[in-house]
Amino acid sequence: MSKEKVILAYSGGLDTSCILKWLLQKNYDVICYIANIGQDEDFEQAKKKALDIGASKVVIEDVKESFVEEYVWPAVQGGLIYESRYLLGTSLARPCISVGLVKCARENHAKYISHGATGKGNDQVRFELSCYSLCPDIQIIAPWRLEEFTSKFQGRQDLMKYAAEHSIPVVATVKAPWSMDANLMHVSYESGILENPANEPPKDLFLMTKDPKDAPEKPTRLEIHFKEGLPTLVKAEKIIYTKPMEILTYLNKIGGEHGIGRIDIVENRFIGMKSRGVYETPGGYILHTAHKDIELFCLDKEVYRVKQNLAERLADYVYNGFWFSPEGSYVRKCIALAEQSVNGYVKLEVYKGNVTVLGRSSETSMYNEDLVSMDKHSNFSPSDATGFINIQALRLKEYQRVKTSSNIH
Amino acid sequence: MSKEKVILAYSGGLDTSCILKWLLQKNYDVICYIANIGQDEDFEQAKKKALDIGASKVVIEDVKESFVEEYVWPAVQGGLIYESRYLLGTSLARPCISVGLVKCARENHAKYISHGATGKGNDQVRFELSCYSLCPDIQIIAPWRLEEFTSKFQGRQDLMKYAAEHSIPVVATVKAPWSMDANLMHVSYESGILENPANEPPKDLFLMTKDPKDAPEKPTRLEIHFKEGLPTLVKAEKIIYTKPMEILTYLNKIGGEHGIGRIDIVENRFIGMKSRGVYETPGGYILHTAHKDIELFCLDKEVYRVKQNLAERLADYVYNGFWFSPEGSYVRKCIALAEQSVNGYVKLEVYKGNVTVLGRSSETSMYNEDLVSMDKHSNFSPSDATGFINIQALRLKEYQRVKTSSNIH
Amino acid sequence: MSKEKVILAYSGGLDTSCILKWLLQKNYDVICYIANIGQDEDFEQAKKKALDIGASKVVIEDVKESFVEEYVWPAVQGGLIYESRYLLGTSLARPCISVGLVKCARENHAKYISHGATGKGNDQVRFELSCYSLCPDIQIIAPWRLEEFTSKFQGRQDLMKYAAEHSIPVVATVKAPWSMDANLMHVSYESGILENPANEPPKDLFLMTKDPKDAPEKPTRLEIHFKEGLPTLVKAEKIIYTKPMEILTYLNKIGGEHGIGRIDIVENRFIGMKSRGVYETPGGYILHTAHKDIELFCLDKEVYRVKQNLAERLADYVYNGFWFSPEGSYVRKCIALAEQSVNGYVKLEVYKGNVTVLGRSSETSMYNEDLVSMDKHSNFSPSDATGFINIQALRLKEYQRVKTSSNIH
Amino acid sequence: MSKEKVILAYSGGLDTSCILKWLLQKNYDVICYIANIGQDEDFEQAKKKALDIGASKVVIEDVKESFVEEYVWPAVQGGLIYESRYLLGTSLARPCISVGLVKCARENHAKYISHGATGKGNDQVRFELSCYSLCPDIQIIAPWRLEEFTSKFQGRQDLMKYAAEHSIPVVATVKAPWSMDANLMHVSYESGILENPANEPPKDLFLMTKDPKDAPEKPTRLEIHFKEGLPTLVKAEKIIYTKPMEILTYLNKIGGEHGIGRIDIVENRFIGMKSRGVYETPGGYILHTAHKDIELFCLDKEVYRVKQNLAERLADYVYNGFWFSPEGSYVRKCIALAEQSVNGYVKLEVYKGNVTVLGRSSETSMYNEDLVSMDKHSNFSPSDATGFINIQALRLKEYQRVKTSSNIH
Repeated sequence: MSKEKVILAYSGGLDTSCILKWLLQKNYDVICYIANIGQDEDFEQAKKKALDIGASKVVIEDVKESFVEEYVWPAVQGGLIYESRYLLGTSLARPCISVGLVKCARENHAKYISHGATGKGNDQVRFELSCYSLCPDIQIIAPWRLEEFTSKFQGRQDLMKYAAEHSIPVVATVKAPWSMDANLMHVSYESGILENPANEPPKDLFLMTKDPKDAPEKPTRLEIHFKEGLPTLVKAEKIIYTKPMEILTYLNKIGGEHGIGRIDIVENRFIGMKSRGVYETPGGYILHTAHKDIELFCLDKEVYRVKQNLAERLADYVYNGFWFSPEGSYVRKCIALAEQSVNGYVKLEVYKGNVTVLGRSSETSMYNEDLVSMDKHSNFSPSDATGFINIQALRLKEYQRVKTSSNIH
Repeated sequence: MSKEKVILAYSGGLDTSCILKWLLQKNYDVICYIANIGQDEDFEQAKKKALDIGASKVVIEDVKESFVEEYVWPAVQGGLIYESRYLLGTSLARPCISVGLVKCARENHAKYISHGATGKGNDQVRFELSCYSLCPDIQIIAPWRLEEFTSKFQGRQDLMKYAAEHSIPVVATVKAPWSMDANLMHVSYESGILENPANEPPKDLFLMTKDPKDAPEKPTRLEIHFKEGLPTLVKAEKIIYTKPMEILTYLNKIGGEHGIGRIDIVENRFIGMKSRGVYETPGGYILHTAHKDIELFCLDKEVYRVKQNLAERLADYVYNGFWFSPEGSYVRKCIALAEQSVNGYVKLEVYKGNVTVLGRSSETSMYNEDLVSMDKHSNFSPSDATGFINIQALRLKEYQRVKTSSNIH
Repeated sequence: MSKEKVILAYSGGLDTSCILKWLLQKNYDVICYIANIGQDEDFEQAKKKALDIGASKVVIEDVKESFVEEYVWPAVQGGLIYESRYLLGTSLARPCISVGLVKCARENHAKYISHGATGKGNDQVRFELSCYSLCPDIQIIAPWRLEEFTSKFQGRQDLMKYAAEHSIPVVATVKAPWSMDANLMHVSYESGILENPANEPPKDLFLMTKDPKDAPEKPTRLEIHFKEGLPTLVKAEKIIYTKPMEILTYLNKIGGEHGIGRIDIVENRFIGMKSRGVYETPGGYILHTAHKDIELFCLDKEVYRVKQNLAERLADYVYNGFWFSPEGSYVRKCIALAEQSVNGYVKLEVYKGNVTVLGRSSETSMYNEDLVSMDKHSNFSPSDATGFINIQALRLKEYQRVKTSSNIH
Repeated sequence: MSKEKVILAYSGGLDTSCILKWLLQKNYDVICYIANIGQDEDFEQAKKKALDIGASKVVIEDVKESFVEEYVWPAVQGGLIYESRYLLGTSLARPCISVGLVKCARENHAKYISHGATGKGNDQVRFELSCYSLCPDIQIIAPWRLEEFTSKFQGRQDLMKYAAEHSIPVVATVKAPWSMDANLMHVSYESGILENPANEPPKDLFLMTKDPKDAPEKPTRLEIHFKEGLPTLVKAEKIIYTKPMEILTYLNKIGGEHGIGRIDIVENRFIGMKSRGVYETPGGYILHTAHKDIELFCLDKEVYRVKQNLAERLADYVYNGFWFSPEGSYVRKCIALAEQSVNGYVKLEVYKGNVTVLGRSSETSMYNEDLVSMDKHSNFSPSDATGFINIQALRLKEYQRVKTSSNIH
């Protein structure tokens, strides 16, 4: 009988290399899938490594464009932010990679998908819910949740020993005392010395951004244009970009230089525990700031409130792995509807960690300079405000009446 | 017959000085009320001016302590922020001043309260709804909404001319081409040249904060302690403050030096129009950042979500002038309940416009280092996550089943 | 100079007849507009009366079809219900009538629209916000808010006297001691003896429905079909209707006979006061009940929650007169999106005030009999529930840990 | 070594009797715990049966009073209703029973709790989350989720056979083709022939309520009093009850006779599947209706909206088993705060399935008959409404302006 095929989400690192070997020992035919989602990695070397270990095939897929256009852009459009601070860089990557995994499984008639995500984290949930949504019949092998695997590999030492025994090459560099995840949108850091929430993140942690203290003394001015809530153009001195990937790449570069978009937070994982994460999202943070500005400039007050409520829900869905859920796709559609009137541009300056909005302009904005001006009456009759206030006061006066006559407080 | 008494919210400026004279001409007995809420003003000179014009009495009341403890502190505790950006500095001051106005009216048996807020703004609503809540029988005279007054005073020139005619002293300095409102928490700027939302705010606008570019090269480290969500202590090198007013004053100073807390936004007024505002809230922004950190560190995940939803409602209530409304006081109580477990301290650094969280600690936090650690199993059984994910996937698979079998998209 | 034209929303009753005369006396050219929205009225007689009084023209427009298809149907689709009980019969009619008023104003080049709604009610707001939305330049004459008018007509006696003086025919029948509003969807009753909320509504109040005690002993069985959340067919013994107006008319008839859809509530008006209303909505209540059943049968659990939240907002918008607002049209679109999968039919029985659901069927439902069955395992692995529960319990156990170790309660 | 002790939630039925025996065979010392929560059961006979099978002890605890006062009453106070229809009768019982189970485990130094809830249902979650909350160290044995057990007992036949083999007495009566759960608040029915959602529930299903068609021709009039949102008194002809349990028992009786409170719904289980349930909740439905009436009569409009949003969240928490969660207890406290002003009484009539509100009265209501009256001006100035409407219209007119000038729709 022919072997069962597994698609392994492979990174080239120690963990997934050991998982690859372990799956081979379990008699699976393993195809390694590597998504190029913008992380800094030698893909060819990873491919060679996997083939050396025994993968029957290695698929490297460049999903950067899809990642930016189909995941990062809608997140910018919605203004998605998890628990008031996290821009969802990793959460957005998982469904994008899952599309590749499932496509690879379909093309290779594989019944299984495997990954190296741990049993306490969010990523296992995001990968698996995405895969199950895209292909309900797929089966997942998550070694870090299997007793058989976790009892064998109780710590990094066991992985190292196993690698040595099976001639899996291990990079000689000392492992950083934290773990990280990188893609075109951000780098995230957690575990290890970061687990103590009182510990300051070490200075040498950050990969995408300079420390604001080391950033240039000279600010950079930007102009970012939006159409229906999506970024369409970035302009700086002598520079114009209009393709999504170019826009994000450029903003990462300029944001990184100016030390933009670092956060250090304790967040709530889907799984119910609190976890400390450090993130840097230079381009994403600039886009988020610009979008928030143009959005509130353009959108009707009440539509903004409805949209904002939907965006808070969607941020939770995305964080929890429900990108492809019914509620996820429904709410994305609703948000896109609201954003139809978010058009125009924002002028910004980036400088030593700051993104400063300097002005904005739009032809579909509800802002009306004549109406709001202190120097013009336009259509506004101030005496109307008297009636407005008196009517608003009715209920408040009633409340006092009842409070006074009864003993409510 | 004795004259009717009016309590006028007096600022010493041109507008309220003209209103004072105008009320006197309308045969009212006018008592000027000046709240010292932390604005930079020569109160004695204002008093003299009012008496010279003809006020029968001038009451100057220092409400700074009440402002910080009863308005700013609850706003910090709730994490109140209007439309994702505005920390409500003016909105919080209005109900505080209204308490003083109403008390003054009661003590002087006045039937009327008058103010100089314009007919297009939020402050008229905030003053009046607060006054009506505190004293349902009070009557408001809002000259800027009276045809009789507005037709007489169509612009600044008319006020200047009237002042000259009635020997009202006018400060010789050129008026800034914008209007501002200041208190212990913030300064806000609007109108004039700011009305064009594409115009960059002028460099010399800001009073509380340095431009980040001119801020010191050396950061300042702070430690802020919270009890039940309220700030109780700030610590910096050689410095400890524990009284609310001292804490805010110190954070304003240090935040101001480091260029913290400037924003430039277009916001939605209660009255239904969009308006552009520039704000600087140095201490408030530091407190907001620190509170958000300790809050998410301490609060249960789901309690946070409920509390956050309440805080968004409360921010709207406060912005719209409903501080003393039934819903305002109800939601404040609910938020205080949630914050009972928000205790601990946050370490921060301020530097050139940035407030960077460096770590936090709490004895009532739901954070559990052992539980989240990648190196420990503690009570966590990774295989449980498999069941968790599979159950979460049930609904998603059903959705695919229905989508496939029907033609829903 | 030619006279200014006013379109008067005319009912043929005493109030609007006096307003007509009064407007004529004010030297306006008055065109009366009567919308046939299903109320029981002799339109020809009303026309004759208006012309006799002096209207220059009377426009009678049958808007019943528009009312059902463009207002009632979307309300059924959204499951709109105000403050948990009121099906919005009057609120839905106002924007529909306003469309007619504005069209009439445009066709006749009238600058004014006038109506007889009172100054304390919701209808003035609904009419005017609708008209202003549809035609921002229109001007409204609301005599019941004009000092000049209200001082002249302080009570019904003044209207009667004025009518007598100006030969306005008055129906001889005694006026009911309450006021009412009727259309194809419902009849509402308020004021007069109903103002005391402890008073039981009189037996002879109701026009559309029998008292359940007088309803037939034999129930009627119905089958109601929905497509994308909209009713498409009603089937009863020997009867099938598929046109919206026929469906509603039939359900009103059968519901009325069986005493369906009466409520007696105290509700919150937009204007801030509480008001007591008695309503009968026979067909609407049957449709609401059937829709709720098929909706929860079909919709995904989380999509339902989002949609439900939107529907609660929309009910408030509609009640408050914001049908044509940005938020109103936005939320209607979002709801229609969600309802795309609400298809199928519901079997019901109506009997003496009860609408009893007997079963339902759909081809786009997320319900899966195999999955839920106690007798089948299908794809469900019960052991997954263990992991699911254990993970859910994590946070709860942490909460106990913190509660025990600190002194939080 | 002494045996490990298990507390088994015992019902006396076939399932838990077999589980009892099975646990004994697994060498546990089993203590049976039976909560008397108002179900119709011969407790002494169940006790004898358990002891005959081999339980080392049987604890029967009457928790009816606690159930009504600590679970049903807060649910009435909050107006809790799951997915717009289900009054949570079973969901409320589970945490109450869990308190008894945990207490029994503590008193008997047992490390385990076992129950007979199935692996697809909600009750397993509710029991276990409650037990884990009350006693984080407890361990649960859920046989219906254990491969070892479910492979042995694949259907009812296997249980019957096992019972026969081990002399477990089986009631001779034919089992109903559905399952049910009963307590003082309601009876629920599901599974078996009810699994087909198009099937009408059989006439002989219902135990607590008469078919409305068989209910008396004569209605019964009731008066229900509330204090802080909690029922305090029920009055009918010649009858007054004031104790919670008496009130509920009486309303069950009278509601049952009049055929009140039957529903047939498809609901969303926590576990992600849709399930069909039939419920009868006679007294609970009367209380819910009365409470809704007095609540909207008393509560401020905006406080009601906040409270209602909290109640929708709480209904989900309770349904999902999170009664003792941080969010559960937090939201209950917030709701109780809001309900402080819900005081007064409601007059109702029950008749053939209908609960009709006839009037209400309160001394803490925001209702103001003078203010709302059409015949009085009181403090209301109708001209204020003009300003109110004009200000509300500002934003709507702006929207039209932008829509017209751009191409937004």
